[in-house]
Amino acid sequence: MSAAASPRPCGVISLLTDFGSTDAYAGIMRGVLLRFAPGAHLVDLTHEVPAHDVRTAALHLADAIPFFPAGTVHLVVVDPGVGTARRGIAVVGAEAFGVGPDNGVLTPLLERGGRAIELADERFALRPVSATFHGRDLFAPAAAALARGVEPEALGPPVADPVLLTAPQPVLDGDAVLGEIMRVDRFGNLVTNVPARMVAGWDGFLVQAGEALVPGPAANYREGGESLRALVGSAGWIEIALREGNASRALGLGPGAAVVVRRRTRGGE
Amino acid sequence: MSAAASPRPCGVISLLTDFGSTDAYAGIMRGVLLRFAPGAHLVDLTHEVPAHDVRTAALHLADAIPFFPAGTVHLVVVDPGVGTARRGIAVVGAEAFGVGPDNGVLTPLLERGGRAIELADERFALRPVSATFHGRDLFAPAAAALARGVEPEALGPPVADPVLLTAPQPVLDGDAVLGEIMRVDRFGNLVTNVPARMVAGWDGFLVQAGEALVPGPAANYREGGESLRALVGSAGWIEIALREGNASRALGLGPGAAVVVRRRTRGGE
Amino acid sequence: MSAAASPRPCGVISLLTDFGSTDAYAGIMRGVLLRFAPGAHLVDLTHEVPAHDVRTAALHLADAIPFFPAGTVHLVVVDPGVGTARRGIAVVGAEAFGVGPDNGVLTPLLERGGRAIELADERFALRPVSATFHGRDLFAPAAAALARGVEPEALGPPVADPVLLTAPQPVLDGDAVLGEIMRVDRFGNLVTNVPARMVAGWDGFLVQAGEALVPGPAANYREGGESLRALVGSAGWIEIALREGNASRALGLGPGAAVVVRRRTRGGE
Repeated sequence: MSAAASPRPCGVISLLTDFGSTDAYAGIMRGVLLRFAPGAHLVDLTHEVPAHDVRTAALHLADAIPFFPAGTVHLVVVDPGVGTARRGIAVVGAEAFGVGPDNGVLTPLLERGGRAIELADERFALRPVSATFHGRDLFAPAAAALARGVEPEALGPPVADPVLLTAPQPVLDGDAVLGEIMRVDRFGNLVTNVPARMVAGWDGFLVQAGEALVPGPAANYREGGESLRALVGSAGWIEIALREGNASRALGLGPGAAVVVRRRTRGGE
Repeated sequence: MSAAASPRPCGVISLLTDFGSTDAYAGIMRGVLLRFAPGAHLVDLTHEVPAHDVRTAALHLADAIPFFPAGTVHLVVVDPGVGTARRGIAVVGAEAFGVGPDNGVLTPLLERGGRAIELADERFALRPVSATFHGRDLFAPAAAALARGVEPEALGPPVADPVLLTAPQPVLDGDAVLGEIMRVDRFGNLVTNVPARMVAGWDGFLVQAGEALVPGPAANYREGGESLRALVGSAGWIEIALREGNASRALGLGPGAAVVVRRRTRGGE
Repeated sequence: MSAAASPRPCGVISLLTDFGSTDAYAGIMRGVLLRFAPGAHLVDLTHEVPAHDVRTAALHLADAIPFFPAGTVHLVVVDPGVGTARRGIAVVGAEAFGVGPDNGVLTPLLERGGRAIELADERFALRPVSATFHGRDLFAPAAAALARGVEPEALGPPVADPVLLTAPQPVLDGDAVLGEIMRVDRFGNLVTNVPARMVAGWDGFLVQAGEALVPGPAANYREGGESLRALVGSAGWIEIALREGNASRALGLGPGAAVVVRRRTRGGE
């Protein structure tokens, strides 16, 4: 049986979890990775995903994938269902691998045409597998195996129906796009789910968010002086920022809040 | 004089400190490690041990040791007595090394039969050694030396009486085990000092903690729905969890609180 | 044209940013570094510099430089002016490289005789360069290029007038030094801008800080029992500490507060 094409592993493993940094959970997972893939390069994406927040983890993964070396293994453990019947999976994408629970957290790799494989072969797990820490016992050994070049098909059978997250989609309505806030970053910037390409032909826009009407696009975080302004963030989403301030606190808004991006016409607002 | 057997170093150095991540202290220690052991793989266990909390650091170390590659050097710096007469030591265990202050923080390696060596040879230290940052000046150079294969005996003379922490031991009393909460993790899970093996023959149990009587063992964090439940955590300790909630906050309990694990009998509670 | 001498890269890249650890920004930058410098050793100094605090980042960098291997590339991204006309630069020092915005954050390398080069060559940047994330698009590719041995002069033309921070200097006034608090560390220690060498000939001193008169130097953090004491910290600055307590909270003081270090005379205070 000839396996489908897989990227060639480059020895880089990224870690993305909701473990926080207070406990040693992420550290222990790193130990397992280096035990089974000596010489691998371990890279933290973040361990501060809010506890059990599968959607935020998937957003971080989507933002990160294009910037990592081809052949990276992305190990993603946000896993409220650990120890239940939910499967563990590996995803083999065109350029990268993913390993984690089958709860939607690997959606960005699956959406880009990745195929899913169930982590079923006990040779690539710590024995016994605990009921509470699959990151250590199941996902890290599988990620290490992929990083050192084990054929993905050796890990288990294909999964035909992996869980996919359905993200709230922005809706174009004439000269407006109805969207929402996806996340707030460390700087208080409000990142929306409206991609810049949806407003690419417009001369400018106003973002209605809570009580505010925020003009954009600004060229950078400094343009617009001390006022709120909208701009295109580094991952291509429209976001609202406040120069050396905190837009989220200023507006009292966070994830899930509705926004409307309206086309601005010359001469009028 | 022929040296006692030592594990063969694998080039992995784990870091466990109370330095936090706001300052550059841990980063500076990493620089020293790579200066003296180029090519070493540095792995963070955690730097968020509560300041000066030797006991919590030892708990993290005990949980981590079994999962790291043989030949790992565990560099542990929780060191309220830095600059005083307390010794710096290396510990040579069967499978791993430890380096840190002689204040009990390396107890898990010593209890597993490790031998202690005083860090006395100035060749393996930065000169001058400051009074306030032995992690940088003394422990990191010694850890780097071990990682690159220096014989442990070259670091200094044996220490016959290294400091050992005495942990509060759970007490079996008929059909009950008297124990206590050891730590609270990021998810609010209350980890006790009662190992699952003490209740291995029981059909089930109830954990009395504060005002609550918590049934167990649950198979995973989801079983038991929205109620508190007890289960066996990933390091083998009985713990109390609240599904997608925070058991510590719900019960108002933290480290040091007494718990009683009572055998559950068929037909009764 | 023969290039000026440059240190030989050692493959270590340190990261120092104000990105925090909640978002994936630092992680994405790590991906870019490993894409362009496979096998590089990435080391975090800290990502918890207060947002936009160029001065604190420069302090951390100054403390770290002497302890890293020769040939390290220090990638420093604290960049409130991202996307504006401010330049991106590399600095080539005697023993290390720096990469970051030309806003003063690389002052410690420039003060030690480093020469600055503008990051102008598009071959060493991601295309297109976003207006909001030069750490990913401009600085990480340049740092990776230096780490893998690209001649610094290939990155762009020399910069004659890089921005330099002017730090508040301590002033010697007879038997006193007028200084200030530079930063507060995780342990609550108040680090001043007064170097120990300014008081090297004194038998002892008193630090006047807020309402307190704090004696020094203590030999270590434990000397002086439960009282406030002054001592020489690990980077050579006089600092005020409280044993297993928090000097900053006890005194209600933070960065910018004035201190006076007064010579103590035998028989007097």
